Amino acid sequence: MDYQNIFNEAIASLKDEKRYRVFANLERIAGRHPHALWRKENQNLREIVIWCSNDYLGMGQHPKVIEAMTETVQRMGAGAGGTRNISGTNYPLVQLEEELADLHGKEGALVFSSGFVSNEASISTIAKLLPDCLILSDQLNHASMIAGVRGAGTSKKVWRHNDLEHLEDLLKAAGNDRAKLIVFESVYSMDGDIAPIERICDLADKYNAMTYIDEVHAVGMYGPRGAGIAERDGVMDRIDIIEGTLAKAFGVMGGYITASQTIIDAVRSYAPGFIFTTAIPPGLAAAATASIKHLKESGVEREGQQRQAQRTKDVLKAAGLPVMPSDTHIIPVLVADPDLCKQATDLLLDKHGIYIQPINYPTVPRGTERLRITPGPVHNDALIDHLRDALVDVWQTLELPFTDAPAEEELDAAQGQAVYQFAGG
Amino acid sequence: MDYQNIFNEAIASLKDEKRYRVFANLERIAGRHPHALWRKENQNLREIVIWCSNDYLGMGQHPKVIEAMTETVQRMGAGAGGTRNISGTNYPLVQLEEELADLHGKEGALVFSSGFVSNEASISTIAKLLPDCLILSDQLNHASMIAGVRGAGTSKKVWRHNDLEHLEDLLKAAGNDRAKLIVFESVYSMDGDIAPIERICDLADKYNAMTYIDEVHAVGMYGPRGAGIAERDGVMDRIDIIEGTLAKAFGVMGGYITASQTIIDAVRSYAPGFIFTTAIPPGLAAAATASIKHLKESGVEREGQQRQAQRTKDVLKAAGLPVMPSDTHIIPVLVADPDLCKQATDLLLDKHGIYIQPINYPTVPRGTERLRITPGPVHNDALIDHLRDALVDVWQTLELPFTDAPAEEELDAAQGQAVYQFAGG
Repeated sequence: MDYQNIFNEAIASLKDEKRYRVFANLERIAGRHPHALWRKENQNLREIVIWCSNDYLGMGQHPKVIEAMTETVQRMGAGAGGTRNISGTNYPLVQLEEELADLHGKEGALVFSSGFVSNEASISTIAKLLPDCLILSDQLNHASMIAGVRGAGTSKKVWRHNDLEHLEDLLKAAGNDRAKLIVFESVYSMDGDIAPIERICDLADKYNAMTYIDEVHAVGMYGPRGAGIAERDGVMDRIDIIEGTLAKAFGVMGGYITASQTIIDAVRSYAPGFIFTTAIPPGLAAAATASIKHLKESGVEREGQQRQAQRTKDVLKAAGLPVMPSDTHIIPVLVADPDLCKQATDLLLDKHGIYIQPINYPTVPRGTERLRITPGPVHNDALIDHLRDALVDVWQTLELPFTDAPAEEELDAAQGQAVYQFAGG
Repeated sequence: MDYQNIFNEAIASLKDEKRYRVFANLERIAGRHPHALWRKENQNLREIVIWCSNDYLGMGQHPKVIEAMTETVQRMGAGAGGTRNISGTNYPLVQLEEELADLHGKEGALVFSSGFVSNEASISTIAKLLPDCLILSDQLNHASMIAGVRGAGTSKKVWRHNDLEHLEDLLKAAGNDRAKLIVFESVYSMDGDIAPIERICDLADKYNAMTYIDEVHAVGMYGPRGAGIAERDGVMDRIDIIEGTLAKAFGVMGGYITASQTIIDAVRSYAPGFIFTTAIPPGLAAAATASIKHLKESGVEREGQQRQAQRTKDVLKAAGLPVMPSDTHIIPVLVADPDLCKQATDLLLDKHGIYIQPINYPTVPRGTERLRITPGPVHNDALIDHLRDALVDVWQTLELPFTDAPAEEELDAAQGQAVYQFAGG
């Protein structure tokens, strides 16, 4: 048994498939998002523009957020000092959970160290507590939800992505008396499409199922107070468990669920991934609360993001780049080959100072490798034009296929529409 | 199917068993550890002394740590902005991983959002990559390691706690050719005993097994540079994977592994719990690096902790309190009943302003419910005497059994010994 060799082979196979990941070593600059410094080969510093950040609104650099974090760290220290049960529950964290419950109109909330853990721990714990539970899981659910489904060890059925007929068939087959948990996302992060939440809730009511939604790519960004797509659609109260993250639009770190007090108490009491983990530091909790409070009141960031995302889509489409359909701020551009995808992003970074990470298998299915672009309110028109020019250059250099570009007038019309559509809200 | 009722019953059964957990709402005060404020029923603030913190050395409030965190947050912002692969790898985090690799004398390191995730993700990924792997797991391994063993889905055998003969029997039965991974802890956190690391390594060599050690309750606190028990025992280079935490003695948040570059690369590339999680914020990484650097150089905190832990043991034993045997800074005091354990800690907090959390099942086996006391360098002699008086009062009030107290001379001798033993580091 040559252990070293086995691990070497595991790495070699990733390299063969051209899906070995290289992490870009970045230094963000507070107040200058999306500009950052890139440390190539751990050496030379170079200024670049980040076009793939999940700090979607730049809230991680908002003065209120930075101030809340530094003030709390100076007053209470760096860490929580223990698990939630053993000396780690801190007042800013209690306040954060109250803020989250309020955001989603639920009785309670529970914060985890990451969105991954919140899904894994909550789905598995809830399903385990329900006798003979059947989990109904959307085909494109995130890896963390799949980890939760597996961790539950109960029966599961996968329904075709956003296919309500298929979901209804499975619900009907299970029968009204069996415990059923429907788990799905609001915004699917690699395609940017949106689930038909209201109609899923209708089916849940009809067949007496519980509903669990992942809103990590929507919280902060959709709905009048930034509570997500379920808020925008007016159906938050129809979902049993809403899961979200503090690490994307809210700009900090950590994940959470909100639900009835009873469900929160059950997960709090039974989930090993929650019980045996150090609480998040008071400084992080205070920063997240400041961010949520700000985005409850302010629509400027959301409007700016929608406007600039729409403009980016329009400009890239007009240049004939293969923009995939998306209903959200997420803009996938198809490459359909892992090696070319990596080459494209290397060229973007080296030649144009644009940082977009290649998205390859297993994050997306093989053959759908893509660039995933996430414009925010601070990606201004000049940056968008620069991005278009860089992508066109890369597409030409690598001889990637263009689509037929729409006529100039169509583009103008689309841009005008976008500005009007989002200026109000 | 009445969902609400099922969750209600799950909570009720915990209350019946007297193991329903109530989190104390604390506000730590930077610079005043172990003193903190306690918000009873979310209302009145009261100053209390924390005697169960896992911020063992008070490093979460060290000026260097607070300074590194606030300076980095102000310069780079609150969050990382993405997963490690998608824009989240930040320079302070790269530096932290270099620092950790150096600390443990390994080629590489990988940081996770928590110690729980580091164990779960690493053990399951390593075992899955090895064909037909047999995991040999110590009976008292932490919940996070058990989660990793389960997540691997490979065969496993549990060896009796610290029982080398049993471990050898299992290794022999598996044979030299089969892939085997021995997973164990250095310091077992609820009992405070220590694994015979060197002899476990001898067995691993003899039967060609890999070794994975959890040092979360030892890093920062043992060894000349604070790398843990394996460093103290001079056997770090004989362990394949050393896992640790940034959330206990280092005072911040997060977990990590250190190992050969190949193993690090394999876990980095294959573990979903790593791949699909937002990177830890640059501020946390900088704070952890400052803490590790400080404890590499300074032995004062370690010496102080050992001295005050020994004094606490001696003083409590002398008062006839049932201190359980422990080789470390962890001092378990036996209560052996979940209800009395909760009553004892409620009395300590309400009447004496001393916060120690009851440790009940499932953290420890039923019938071994206990108080778990973790003195640090800042628990001075007066605080220790106050703790003793409070415990004696509680023991008398609840009519808990005392042991026979040793004679006064024995106590004096023990105390003298302790001071000499640890004065040199």
